[in-house]
This record gives sequence, structure tokens and C-alpha cells, in this order.
Amino acid sequence: MPTNILTATHTVYLVGAGPGDPDLITVKGRDILRRAGVVVYDALANPALLAETPPTAELVYAGKRAGRHALSQDEINELLFQLAQKHAGVVRLKGGDPFVFGRGGEELAYLRARGVRVEVVPGISSAVAAAAAAGVPVTHRGLSNNFAVVTGHQVDGAVDEPNWRALTAADTLVIMMGLGAIERVVERLIAAGRDQATPAMVISAATLPEQAVVVAPLAELPARVAAAGLRSPATIVVGEVVNMAEIAPAARPAATLWSREPGPVEAAPLSAIVF
Amino acid sequence: MPTNILTATHTVYLVGAGPGDPDLITVKGRDILRRAGVVVYDALANPALLAETPPTAELVYAGKRAGRHALSQDEINELLFQLAQKHAGVVRLKGGDPFVFGRGGEELAYLRARGVRVEVVPGISSAVAAAAAAGVPVTHRGLSNNFAVVTGHQVDGAVDEPNWRALTAADTLVIMMGLGAIERVVERLIAAGRDQATPAMVISAATLPEQAVVVAPLAELPARVAAAGLRSPATIVVGEVVNMAEIAPAARPAATLWSREPGPVEAAPLSAIVF
Repeated sequence: MPTNILTATHTVYLVGAGPGDPDLITVKGRDILRRAGVVVYDALANPALLAETPPTAELVYAGKRAGRHALSQDEINELLFQLAQKHAGVVRLKGGDPFVFGRGGEELAYLRARGVRVEVVPGISSAVAAAAAAGVPVTHRGLSNNFAVVTGHQVDGAVDEPNWRALTAADTLVIMMGLGAIERVVERLIAAGRDQATPAMVISAATLPEQAVVVAPLAELPARVAAAGLRSPATIVVGEVVNMAEIAPAARPAATLWSREPGPVEAAPLSAIVF
Repeated sequence: MPTNILTATHTVYLVGAGPGDPDLITVKGRDILRRAGVVVYDALANPALLAETPPTAELVYAGKRAGRHALSQDEINELLFQLAQKHAGVVRLKGGDPFVFGRGGEELAYLRARGVRVEVVPGISSAVAAAAAAGVPVTHRGLSNNFAVVTGHQVDGAVDEPNWRALTAADTLVIMMGLGAIERVVERLIAAGRDQATPAMVISAATLPEQAVVVAPLAELPARVAAAGLRSPATIVVGEVVNMAEIAPAARPAATLWSREPGPVEAAPLSAIVF
């Protein structure tokens, strides 16, 4: 393990931690963590990654948990700026990818406008990896030649509520951070024209040992997920590709991978990306 | 470096190589490569990654180049199945992410149906990372709260031509493998209602030293890209977030990062993810 600290001043490394499994960070991201001087990290970045940092590294928690903001986004922006003035090796570690609903763009713009150099290291996003962890490709010849990604935070008359009619016309629709609003999201999609029998799924804690998956027709998904007690973080996937979901063989109907009948929640084995 | 070979038989490791920069593979993916017995690799997987394999590993090229298929998809599927019968540590290395237009789902389904265990290791996809490599987040508060991803292979009356009207209603639209069809793609988007002045860009060879970026209003993009001589692989990004593109300061107009005037092609510095 390299033990030298990153020496560039006035630089912030904006690093994606990946979807959960700490081995799903990039080689580049881990190398940067191993040379970090200060790490400002989120709730969704796996704490196991912090063990990669040098013993001298300062660790600052800036995440959100249980609806409480440890720091506001403005405070995080300014903290990163201040740290870059006096520390070398400032790393901003964010769950998933910094640029997929990670507000990394805001941090980048704030720092860049103040003369701080930013190096962006992408991360594996649950936008694709959550479905993959349940055996579902977001694109598949004959089933899906495009996909769209949105969050569940954007319902309930938010000023920036997205164009659900357009989004639900995508072959595969991925709704990140959607568990808290799953009933309203499903209502929106059905109202926007999506067939209520469309195969749909929720993946909770994707790529982690506690991963759990529920597969159901779109209209039944909220009730099934509630009955199963799934928890955040979770990703909703809607589209024909969900028919490819791998569920535990013991509970799987013999003739099909996809059942409209209620069934038990399936926890994927091992690291949850094994089929 | 672990030198033991992966010992599981009847297993294929479906590994995403990432967008180009070999350090953007995941830690898990590299660890698997380092223990591979056989690697079946694509044209888009960086050959530098093959140097990570044990000296005894067999390397099989299965990619496509210059329109020629080294192997058909059916042949690749069967090859992986046959290899899994007699070899341990069969690794299928694919550029980007196996499940984002990588046909990994077809390989997974073929192998799974024949009793071969498949472990999927996601990769960083250019769907998000190409834009990021030019300083552009696909989502950004106030500019884009959703994005859609499609390929440029799906124009010209293909039976599976996507719903361009729906896709172009996404705040950010990413068109992968779009360079060969860029004129028709842009026509489709404008015909589907996208303003011809929408900020748009093409990123060629994202995350590699030879990365090149062209930013232009949507309607002018094909001509500007042709004049610049950009080559595949390339990703098209359309939407207001393109205004955040970082181009070389010397060539950048003082007042804005975004100019409607023709300008020189900007090659990003260093690893191209440095701003």
C-alpha cells in the first residue's frame, strides 16, 4: 500500500465509492483513498473504505441519515474549499457516482469558480448496478434498447417534478432513492400510461450481504415491498427486463423466473452478484 | 499480486473493464483478472488490462473492429459455455459495463440456461463517465433531474428504433456509439422537439490520453465534429448540463464556458478528468 500522502494543494479529489460492496470502488479511487490527507464522506459510502486511508488521515462525516443533514450542501461546498486551502490530499468520497444524483456537480462548480482544481473519479452507480445485482440488465436485445434514470425525491408537486409520461416511455425506468415515495411513484407511472402489470422490482442494499429483492407487477409493488419490510437505500426498476431477475431457485416457480403471485422476498446469495 | 488461479469450474466472470482508463476498472474486476485462467475480451476493453492477467492465462479476442465481427454473439455465447466446461477462471472482459449495451445479458441468459454459474462485476459506463470526463454531470440541481441513455445504432428505420420523442424529453440525453449516425440522430432529436440550440457535445476516447471534446449547439454538432475529425468510440450528450463542460482555458471565451461560435476542438489535459 502506498503510504505517501497526495501532495497537490488546492485540489479536491471527487471520488465515487460505488454501490455498496467496497470492492466495487475503482482501482484509481482506492489508490487515491490510500494517499488521502482528509476524507469528507457520505452516509452511502461504505465505511469499510475508510479503513483504506492512512492512519494520519482526518475523516469528516458530511452525510445525511434519518432525514437529518449532518451538513448542508452549502456547508459541504465551503468545507471542501477551506480544506483545500490548507490540506493536501482532500478527498470527497460519495456513494455511487458523484455525478448521478450525487450533487457532485455543485461541489465541482463551487470549487472550480474559486480556483480549486477538481479531479473526478467516477464510481459504479446503482442506476445500473442495483438491477445487475439481481441479474437484470438495464438493456437487453429485444427487451430494452434504452433506459432512463430519475429519483423518487421528485414527486409530490416538487417544482422540478419530471416528465413522467416521457420517462415511463423508456424501455427500462430506474428510480433511485425511491422507497420512501414508492406508492406515489407507481401512481405517477400508471397515470402516465405504464401498464400496471409491467414487471417491476425493488433492490435494497444492492451488492451488500444484506441485499434483498422483491419482484412484482408494477401495481402490486408497493404493497409487496411494504410486506417484505425492505429498507433504504433501495432502487426501483420497471420494465420487461425485470423478467430476467434471478430469484432463489427454491422459491422460483418451475416454469418461469417471473410470477405474478405473491411470494417470499428473495435475498440473493453471497455478494449478491452471483447467479 | 495474487497468483493463484480462480478455481471455480462451470463459472464465467462477466467483468466490466470501464470506459478506457485502465485504472477505472473496479478493484474486484482487477482482482479477478489477476487470477484468470482464460480471458475472452472485447475491442473496447483497454488492452493494458490484459497485462494484469497471469502469464499462463489464455487470451481470446472476441471483439468487433471496423465493422468486422471477430466472432458473432452466438459464437461468443457458445465459446464461453465450452470454456466453462474445461477451464477454471473463465473471464469475459467487456468495455464499459456488461449490462449497458454490452450484450452481457445475452451471455448471462445463455450460460445460466445451461447450468453455468455467472458472476457479474459491473464496470464504469461511458453512459455517465464520458460526460464526467469533460466536466459535465448528467444530473445537476436546477439543470437536470433525470437522464436517458440510448445508442446511435438504433436509427435508420431499425425495427427497434426507440421513441425519440420520449427520450428527448429527458433533461439529459446520452447517445452511446453515436458518431457514425450523428447526423441522423440530431435530425431525429430536432424532429422530436428538441430545440436546435440545445447545448450538445461529443466526447471521443473518454478518459484516455487522446480524449477529445467538441461542444456546439445541437444543430451544429455534426458539422463541428466532422470538421474536428473526431473518431469512435464516442459519446453524444445533449442537454443544459453541457454548459458545464470544461474546455481548455486558453480557448475558452472569457464570459462563458459555452459558446455558440465555432471554436477549436479541446483536448482535455492529462487523464482528461482533471479540471
